[in-house]
Amino acid sequence: MPHIPLESHLPGITGLLEYNKVTAQPIRDLTQILLRGPSTLSEFDRELIATIVSHGNQCKFCTTAHTAAADLLAGEAETSQKIKEDIETAPVSEKMKALLTIAKLTGQSGRNVTPTHIERAKAAGATDIEIHDTVLIAALFSLYNRYVDGMGTALPDNPAYYNVLAERLVNHGYTRLPQGYDHLKK
Amino acid sequence: MPHIPLESHLPGITGLLEYNKVTAQPIRDLTQILLRGPSTLSEFDRELIATIVSHGNQCKFCTTAHTAAADLLAGEAETSQKIKEDIETAPVSEKMKALLTIAKLTGQSGRNVTPTHIERAKAAGATDIEIHDTVLIAALFSLYNRYVDGMGTALPDNPAYYNVLAERLVNHGYTRLPQGYDHLKK
Repeated sequence: MPHIPLESHLPGITGLLEYNKVTAQPIRDLTQILLRGPSTLSEFDRELIATIVSHGNQCKFCTTAHTAAADLLAGEAETSQKIKEDIETAPVSEKMKALLTIAKLTGQSGRNVTPTHIERAKAAGATDIEIHDTVLIAALFSLYNRYVDGMGTALPDNPAYYNVLAERLVNHGYTRLPQGYDHLKK
Repeated sequence: MPHIPLESHLPGITGLLEYNKVTAQPIRDLTQILLRGPSTLSEFDRELIATIVSHGNQCKFCTTAHTAAADLLAGEAETSQKIKEDIETAPVSEKMKALLTIAKLTGQSGRNVTPTHIERAKAAGATDIEIHDTVLIAALFSLYNRYVDGMGTALPDNPAYYNVLAERLVNHGYTRLPQGYDHLKK
């Protein structure tokens, strides 16, 4: 049960974003810019970064939601599973291995990111802005993971909820859902 | 040295907020709402929450900056020091002890916040929105701490910088600094 009263049909972050729409707006804006804005990292790459950080922070709601979004974008569920098991042997580019490693470390502590990790990413072709965005996405999901679990939010009753949410994140992004999306219930 | 080129006269978060003004805007907005917006928690209380989280995450720039802001708001430097040493014996109310404990735990992992911690806060008079804001401030500073350290940002050359920054945070808040603040250099 959540630590404060939240709408019972809105699990995880969704109930919190409804609880306080004033704080929700900049959180939505930042996520939309970072995960859906112009970038040389694909939306799939960026959802993988959100996934690896949420997985490292053991946030079940966020991990499952962003895994589902990544899988829908990729049309397969193998890559997201493999990066959670072991980044180094996962079927992603050397650049993405370096960036996912930076993201995972940032999720633990920014102090764990060393010049060696950054050099590896640059040697594999990562640009400054890609490194910047990777760290900031990892920092943002460290916020989400703490917000979702620190408030004791509920998981959806029906796991199919994550697929509906993924469809929304892929096709509508992170902006506020228009009226009439009553089917997005857990 | 920062992991990407940042303006050398802007240490810590300040160089990052200039590096990408698009992502900086929602981060500034969220901080302004949470730390300076209408609240039954004082600005001092909220700066103490930022301080205890940054201290727990061992982010030197953020800890020193928000300690300086808290001290300027309080007109004394004892309380901020004492909460960093031991929340339970610090000269703050029982409600603030409960909220600072929730904040500190959230900074580690949201999963560390238990119903017992929440019940203590509620028994001491904390409202739902105060608990919500405490967790979200703690989550936001977990973002800042990771962004600042994950990008390897520099500390100011001159420690007096923190006092200038504190004056700015207390008197101007977290919105973008107007033109002409060239004295805010490290």
